[in-house]
Amino acid sequence: MIKKFQFLCKPEVIYGANSISSLPSIVKSLNCKNLLIVVDKTFSKTIFFSDILKILQKENIKFFIFDKIEVEPDTEIGNECGKFAKKNKCDVVCGIGGGSVLDTAKAASILITNDGYIEDYQGLNKVPKPGVPKIMIPTTAGTGSEVTYTAVFIRKDLKRKGGINSPYLYPDYAILDPVLTIPLPPDVTASTGLDAFCHAIESYISRKANFLTEIISLSSMRLIWNNIYKVYIEGEDIKARENMLYGSFLGGIGLANAGVTAVHSMSYPLGGRYGIPHGVGNAMLLPYVLDSDIENDKSFTIKSKFANIIDYVMPQYKDKSEDFKSHLLIKEIKKLNEKLNIPRLRNFNIQFETFNQLAEEALQVQVPIENNPYPITKEHIIQIYKNAY
Amino acid sequence: MIKKFQFLCKPEVIYGANSISSLPSIVKSLNCKNLLIVVDKTFSKTIFFSDILKILQKENIKFFIFDKIEVEPDTEIGNECGKFAKKNKCDVVCGIGGGSVLDTAKAASILITNDGYIEDYQGLNKVPKPGVPKIMIPTTAGTGSEVTYTAVFIRKDLKRKGGINSPYLYPDYAILDPVLTIPLPPDVTASTGLDAFCHAIESYISRKANFLTEIISLSSMRLIWNNIYKVYIEGEDIKARENMLYGSFLGGIGLANAGVTAVHSMSYPLGGRYGIPHGVGNAMLLPYVLDSDIENDKSFTIKSKFANIIDYVMPQYKDKSEDFKSHLLIKEIKKLNEKLNIPRLRNFNIQFETFNQLAEEALQVQVPIENNPYPITKEHIIQIYKNAY
Repeated sequence: MIKKFQFLCKPEVIYGANSISSLPSIVKSLNCKNLLIVVDKTFSKTIFFSDILKILQKENIKFFIFDKIEVEPDTEIGNECGKFAKKNKCDVVCGIGGGSVLDTAKAASILITNDGYIEDYQGLNKVPKPGVPKIMIPTTAGTGSEVTYTAVFIRKDLKRKGGINSPYLYPDYAILDPVLTIPLPPDVTASTGLDAFCHAIESYISRKANFLTEIISLSSMRLIWNNIYKVYIEGEDIKARENMLYGSFLGGIGLANAGVTAVHSMSYPLGGRYGIPHGVGNAMLLPYVLDSDIENDKSFTIKSKFANIIDYVMPQYKDKSEDFKSHLLIKEIKKLNEKLNIPRLRNFNIQFETFNQLAEEALQVQVPIENNPYPITKEHIIQIYKNAY
Repeated sequence: MIKKFQFLCKPEVIYGANSISSLPSIVKSLNCKNLLIVVDKTFSKTIFFSDILKILQKENIKFFIFDKIEVEPDTEIGNECGKFAKKNKCDVVCGIGGGSVLDTAKAASILITNDGYIEDYQGLNKVPKPGVPKIMIPTTAGTGSEVTYTAVFIRKDLKRKGGINSPYLYPDYAILDPVLTIPLPPDVTASTGLDAFCHAIESYISRKANFLTEIISLSSMRLIWNNIYKVYIEGEDIKARENMLYGSFLGGIGLANAGVTAVHSMSYPLGGRYGIPHGVGNAMLLPYVLDSDIENDKSFTIKSKFANIIDYVMPQYKDKSEDFKSHLLIKEIKKLNEKLNIPRLRNFNIQFETFNQLAEEALQVQVPIENNPYPITKEHIIQIYKNAY
């Protein structure tokens, strides 16, 4: 079969413990007059954040802080951030936080240079002009937003999430400093880490995967698999935090280059309608989507892909059969969810009767649906929601 | 330690058996009036090449063929190709061959748009203007030239090789069609394959390696290690040819992003002075440079890197000690060289007395020397030449 790809990994990456110290020199190299800092509310109260401000002040860098993001952002808060940036004539944006914060910072970058609102740009390639330079500093090992060209916002009016997807959203710099992920509490560590794991496994099994993204996705899975429980029980394990951050970045590359699959489509409406955090939604659904993939993939390539994952992530089972390994993978993911205390769908106030509606909305998140290894239908999706209940 | 990188993999990649069929549509998408085809002399006599011409003719694409490259190119033949391209008003270049051919095609691309000669542009960032679009079609699994920004030419007057290194040399398209590598004879299959293996292992141990390039280099090594002997004894094994081609491409990404080490610096003068093919030179030297790395790397990171390679490439030795694994790696590479009938230095007309001169020239190939895991000196290099004799 003839396939093609063009690989993208745009940001200049600065990484390692204390790599945050390079922030002032990056900002200065951009001849920045007014820096917009979009920061996670919780993180903004840590000593880590005040230390960042200190090193910026020391270099006389003028900045404006937008710290209003608490949960997953809706378009309203995104537009407010853009307005704030414009008012203060910000010419470089810096996001310090999880995916919500980084996405908002990315959106602010293009709202500064374009006249419209987030609602105008949700979709694919709808942003007319490039934004100002973007520096992304993740404080979760999760979304991989520091390497993707997407920014997701809830449309409150439509009870739906929608992504701005534009090459103008690619970050210019990513600082991967594991020290900054230390204050992350265990539950968020777990759910964001599983979100990253979803990016890795979904991009690996995506129809758009290629021989380059596949090895990146596999490496991401291995890093996360071997470290997520460590950071869950011991948040100060800096080596494990580092591995998680690199794993998340690699998962983001997988996501940006090969896309995700039905898990993400099905998780979107859970966020849009019930406010279920993105990582939690993905984690809850993942094993049941994989179950469905095995059951319905008529080309039988999925089992061999699942077996590859086992060879790579749990090499102790290398000599087992493909069938054994593919089912083992799902079993192990379910076990991991339990160990990390990920809730089930039934723990949220969701009625069985809404599954039909949710499935319709999931199908509208079209690109990941198209990437799914087998052609997934509304009936499949309803069944998966039921299984994940 | 704080490190940084900016990852580059520019070409749009079309891959898989018979992916060559996409060539006409690519050429047409570039609004090409006159296509320059630079082709390997041997390959130009195959049915594969006449088939390529047929599909171009069928689409009324006008082309001009430059097929004079037999061995590694000197600046003279490179300039001749550039002149030929200019004379025929070529506006897209297409290289079909091994590294020599692809490098010449890349150089022609910038000679069309710039007024000087190859000699003017050898070095780093010396090319003033972008070239015309470049389509690269490797017929060896070797140099990875289809993804690098380098084109190497021998300066006959100086008896030395020199690379044009410029972002304007990055190919725009790479077609990886394993079918086209079938006519490659066993000895060239072996030496070019080992060249690719050198790119992989050297980029892995390079000081410029990072967590992204490392996994790409490891995957490249595994693909080549598991397939090189297969394609050596059975050139029509299309699956193995495919794996070699992807391995070589990935090795090229490693090379382009993390560089190579002392092996390449030491191989250059062997090519420049004695005409030893690039792949053969690298293959002969590789195990002895690695020996020297183990012996002299005072930070002791190299042994753990070698052990990682074994874990990845020969997982059956996973439970052995780091020390065992690192020496095993070198032993296995020496064995592979023997199995593939790679000659030794003594098989060429080289005198021991020239090692001093060769070492001085090797040190002038500075960037790979700087990338070497330990600070390598003239004395080390002379010793390595002696060991490889």
